[in-house]
Amino acid sequence: MPYFDAASAAPLHPVARQALLAALDEGWADPARLYREGRRARLLLDAAREAAAEAVGCRPDELTFTSSGTRAVHSGISGALAGRRRVGRHLVVSAVEHSYVLHSAAAHEAQGGSVTEVPVDRSGAVSPAAYGAELREDTALACLQSANHEVGTEQPVAEVAALCRDAGVPLLVDAAQSLGRGPVPGGWSLLAASAHKWGGPAGVGLLAVRKGVRFAVRGPADERESGRAAGFENIPAIVAAAASLRAVRAEAAAESVRLRALVERIRSRVPALVPDVEVVGDPVRRLPHLVTFSCLYVDGETLLHELDRAGFSVSSGSSCTSSTLIPSHVLRAMGVLSEGNVRVSLPTGTTEEDVDRFLDVLPGVVAGVREKLGAPAAAAPSPAPAASLVVDALGRRCPVPVIELAKVIADVPVGGTVTVLSDDEAARLDIPAWCAMREQEYVGEEPADRGSAYVVRRLS
Amino acid sequence: MPYFDAASAAPLHPVARQALLAALDEGWADPARLYREGRRARLLLDAAREAAAEAVGCRPDELTFTSSGTRAVHSGISGALAGRRRVGRHLVVSAVEHSYVLHSAAAHEAQGGSVTEVPVDRSGAVSPAAYGAELREDTALACLQSANHEVGTEQPVAEVAALCRDAGVPLLVDAAQSLGRGPVPGGWSLLAASAHKWGGPAGVGLLAVRKGVRFAVRGPADERESGRAAGFENIPAIVAAAASLRAVRAEAAAESVRLRALVERIRSRVPALVPDVEVVGDPVRRLPHLVTFSCLYVDGETLLHELDRAGFSVSSGSSCTSSTLIPSHVLRAMGVLSEGNVRVSLPTGTTEEDVDRFLDVLPGVVAGVREKLGAPAAAAPSPAPAASLVVDALGRRCPVPVIELAKVIADVPVGGTVTVLSDDEAARLDIPAWCAMREQEYVGEEPADRGSAYVVRRLS
Repeated sequence: MPYFDAASAAPLHPVARQALLAALDEGWADPARLYREGRRARLLLDAAREAAAEAVGCRPDELTFTSSGTRAVHSGISGALAGRRRVGRHLVVSAVEHSYVLHSAAAHEAQGGSVTEVPVDRSGAVSPAAYGAELREDTALACLQSANHEVGTEQPVAEVAALCRDAGVPLLVDAAQSLGRGPVPGGWSLLAASAHKWGGPAGVGLLAVRKGVRFAVRGPADERESGRAAGFENIPAIVAAAASLRAVRAEAAAESVRLRALVERIRSRVPALVPDVEVVGDPVRRLPHLVTFSCLYVDGETLLHELDRAGFSVSSGSSCTSSTLIPSHVLRAMGVLSEGNVRVSLPTGTTEEDVDRFLDVLPGVVAGVREKLGAPAAAAPSPAPAASLVVDALGRRCPVPVIELAKVIADVPVGGTVTVLSDDEAARLDIPAWCAMREQEYVGEEPADRGSAYVVRRLS
Repeated sequence: MPYFDAASAAPLHPVARQALLAALDEGWADPARLYREGRRARLLLDAAREAAAEAVGCRPDELTFTSSGTRAVHSGISGALAGRRRVGRHLVVSAVEHSYVLHSAAAHEAQGGSVTEVPVDRSGAVSPAAYGAELREDTALACLQSANHEVGTEQPVAEVAALCRDAGVPLLVDAAQSLGRGPVPGGWSLLAASAHKWGGPAGVGLLAVRKGVRFAVRGPADERESGRAAGFENIPAIVAAAASLRAVRAEAAAESVRLRALVERIRSRVPALVPDVEVVGDPVRRLPHLVTFSCLYVDGETLLHELDRAGFSVSSGSSCTSSTLIPSHVLRAMGVLSEGNVRVSLPTGTTEEDVDRFLDVLPGVVAGVREKLGAPAAAAPSPAPAASLVVDALGRRCPVPVIELAKVIADVPVGGTVTVLSDDEAARLDIPAWCAMREQEYVGEEPADRGSAYVVRRLS
């Protein structure tokens, strides 16, 4: 039963499991205490910090263990913003950061700070020049992920770090998706990551803050972890996290080559096997193990269920798989199709056979979902085309508005328009994406009594 | 090698270990995902919540798992204060709450809120009437521990809860020290606890918030744990925490009776075996497994080291064992001796033999420390007493100022005074405590060029 969602959480690495078991016996006591159980716990904690710092590429006293990657990011952002409050209250982030970064940014705005989101191109990458242009005199902090968690695109961290250094702005790098594969390049000032992404246990994040970076802890004082992570240290999990980081790093070079080839196979085969698919994300500058594609006329939730029934665990950025019915902000920022979205992220050890079986199963699953939804199979022009048509898809959810559009586009003559009425958030992203894929003209969106009217001109 | 510091952290309970191992295999995936690994994780999380809620005495949807007890308290206090901000910004706490509560209170004050600390009596308990008198129209929240972590005294939670209910003020109970022994009585509104105190793993706290209590989450938004605990859920540890809470509860009644008898033995034997000892905390309304005493003329850090060499792991509230050189705020609030302070907290399964061996070893260890420090063994009046003496103990740390005082008290006639010059924080607490133990008169403290002058009149 292949699990293809390593970007959400990886199963516990055998080294992590072994280290955790040993440390449960040796590392349960309070490391602040003077007696032998406390000293033993302290030794384990110190050794784990040394090992993790070496993997990160920082000094041990620059590294703090937090209770999760989310906490590492929250604390890193709030601490850096507070430490540089005299400089200003401007925060720069990319538009495709993980939601924990964007939620921190929203909290900062709610407290009177200002935030600039740097847009990304269709591959999901920021342009260093565009990023650098947003750095201002009053910029307190800049944030950039090492690689995107939904589409795998690597960000130009070294280039942006150089621009930040020139501007005197500290850069926080969210390395959650990449730290298990290698150190983060370039001159970051703060770095955050999460152990369960690299096969460590849940409950451990890490936050590195370079010496010299102004940092002021927010919230109630606490003497543990340099005051940067309140609460009793979870030493067994920290030991397991550090041990597994070393272990996965040692395997990373060879494993990345292998996974990159498997992902390349998915990237090239899926568009050949499944009609009307858009593979998104940078094809070259990307994480080795992750690929994302979207299938026209497909409901993401049904697709996930059908793949799960067929034995494959994947995730999706489609609106129907989120509690808010809003498509992934990453796909929106990239301006790519969000319907029928599938993210495949291969854990260490994924076999060629598993990937081939996925490629065998996928076309039938997608076809089945499309058939149930009544998606258009082939264009069948109607005898007497009208110059323009209005399709009422109000109250219908993704992917229905796009399906309805596709069904009637051939009913208008070339040069004629189809107007889709829709109150589904995903339509705003998916109708223009469909036009790009189908080489039709997306004229624009107009407000309507309910929802919006999306106007499409037939070009071919 | 007996470990007598269960109040800091308990070794992992066998049930916790077993549950943790099973859940590492079954509960590592993201419980928000729709595929089978995610659904399995969700089932484990739901079952753990049900079990923990039953033990706490609340509904499952009132209970949130946090990354530590500290986080549960920080979030509980900040959330309740924010939720009732329209009512006012007044917070009531007891003077002997755990530092994580007092640090939350300090953070609230730093943001413009007001805080009242309710004093305690010499046993460490608040008076319900005194507590109730501090509840005001603008009181947003009241906090009271179920039992004190340093001296074991139980607080009158039910009585204070009734007064809070009458005043319409929610009460947050820090149940860290007692939840493994039984549910918290009375009408609390919020409750916080920590798994590693009851033999669960580190990395799990719990926060219960009764339906109807106004609560507004602070900090960046996060969809997990009802928004009250940001970050990926640590399901294996949560499962282990819930399983061990049930297990220790099942053992609690019998084990508490057994430990209570062992602690009673320490309470009664120590003053008989060791001269000049003060056993502190309520002798009856107390935690079953915890006892604290202070030894005159003893340096707490040396005492801890010597006990550790003899094989006993205990902790201390003496100033010399804290990084700030300030005695425990709990002992200060109680007005009891802080020097040579020892806290003994017995873990489940402690044997009678271990306790007897501790009682065998303790007198010799204390005598050895006193001898090294040149503490007075017996009064030897000097031939020509002066009416008053000044002892310069400037620059000397606890317990030296009290030792110097004891050495010369017989050198002044009855009615004469000794003035001790000291710049050690512990002297402020320990010189009056010595006077009470020795039935001498503590005249008072006066400012001096350096430190303070503490004046003592010889009465006998």
